[in-house]
Amino acid sequence: MASNKEDMKLFGMLISPYVIRVEIALKLKGIEYKYIEEKPGNLSEKAIQYNPIYKKVPILVHNEKHISESLVILEYIDETWKQNPILPSDPYKKALARFWSKFIDDKVMYAARKAFFYHDEKELEQGIEETTVALQLLENELKDKFFGGEEIGIVDISAVILAYWLPIIQEAFGVKLFTSDKFPKLYNWSQDFNNHPIVKELLPPRETLKTNYKGLYERHVASK
Amino acid sequence: MASNKEDMKLFGMLISPYVIRVEIALKLKGIEYKYIEEKPGNLSEKAIQYNPIYKKVPILVHNEKHISESLVILEYIDETWKQNPILPSDPYKKALARFWSKFIDDKVMYAARKAFFYHDEKELEQGIEETTVALQLLENELKDKFFGGEEIGIVDISAVILAYWLPIIQEAFGVKLFTSDKFPKLYNWSQDFNNHPIVKELLPPRETLKTNYKGLYERHVASK
Repeated sequence: MASNKEDMKLFGMLISPYVIRVEIALKLKGIEYKYIEEKPGNLSEKAIQYNPIYKKVPILVHNEKHISESLVILEYIDETWKQNPILPSDPYKKALARFWSKFIDDKVMYAARKAFFYHDEKELEQGIEETTVALQLLENELKDKFFGGEEIGIVDISAVILAYWLPIIQEAFGVKLFTSDKFPKLYNWSQDFNNHPIVKELLPPRETLKTNYKGLYERHVASK
Repeated sequence: MASNKEDMKLFGMLISPYVIRVEIALKLKGIEYKYIEEKPGNLSEKAIQYNPIYKKVPILVHNEKHISESLVILEYIDETWKQNPILPSDPYKKALARFWSKFIDDKVMYAARKAFFYHDEKELEQGIEETTVALQLLENELKDKFFGGEEIGIVDISAVILAYWLPIIQEAFGVKLFTSDKFPKLYNWSQDFNNHPIVKELLPPRETLKTNYKGLYERHVASK
């Protein structure tokens, strides 16, 4: 069960919400790891060698076995270290947790991306409408303090992109999608989640992200 | 462990490669189920009620618990019925199986769709190039008779879309992507897979699919 820094490496990127998913899971499990920061748009040879297919982070390297894709890594961590489970043990509840984790990437963020990187007014409207519908579904799904119940689970971890990144990105792009008045339960959840001691210490500085997304916004506007 | 027809319902569609994934898994496990055929573009109220978010099949209803998303359903089936496992038990091998199952949808079929529904020559070229790269990666990954080893596993089941659908779709659209000379190992695998007794009895008639995709192709051309 024990691991040391030599056994576990995480190739990451400070600004990536997908990397922090893995870090939250590792910290929740109490697993030590060596973190290797990669540069956006310029991945190291080592990282490319470990993830030649997607050429992106996060990449978890555990005793030279390398795994990519954040949701796949989260399941690997949960199956390898049993303490502080992030997935329910009941197969049906597990299926629901997988469904909603996937939903955050496939529906919420897919729609939000459309609203941020729109090419015409119609696409912007569609993006806003689809994000609103998706966020409402998540709002309805939230029944306890966290999606995982009283403790953080895989859906909460996947939704870090929503809790911390989305408010910053929408500020940088000037498109409001996630607000406390429209989604009060989800907003309260995001506050609880961002203030969870393990999450809080991992979140990158707000200003760093804001600068990054402002830059992205300016390049997007310039390319239109 | 036992189940009867009353306990298990599958809402499906004859022409869907995602539905057949679930059927293969159920048959491999020896689970009886009641199959309910849905009409393309006109889902029944019951199906919409069970999958209000994506409004699509497959939907598995097990003792009134409903699950959607084919890969999520496959994992549920494997966790609920332990006989004839379709996922490896080792966490790392399991992670790899999940990675490649996801790869088939996210990379292979995503690229193929680009090649079929292209809007200009550049998109067609890109689609062909990306599909070729993705298929080559799968070709390299195939080390045994099946991706699952000597028996069919989750990657094989996910790749039914490749083994049976892709050759038919590419014929209908007149864009060759998957050929025996370019991908000999993958081609042999597809023959073995399509001729597996459980798979064979589930595959829809070739002509039905061809008519369907010819129709799709004609509508696509007309809309250009």
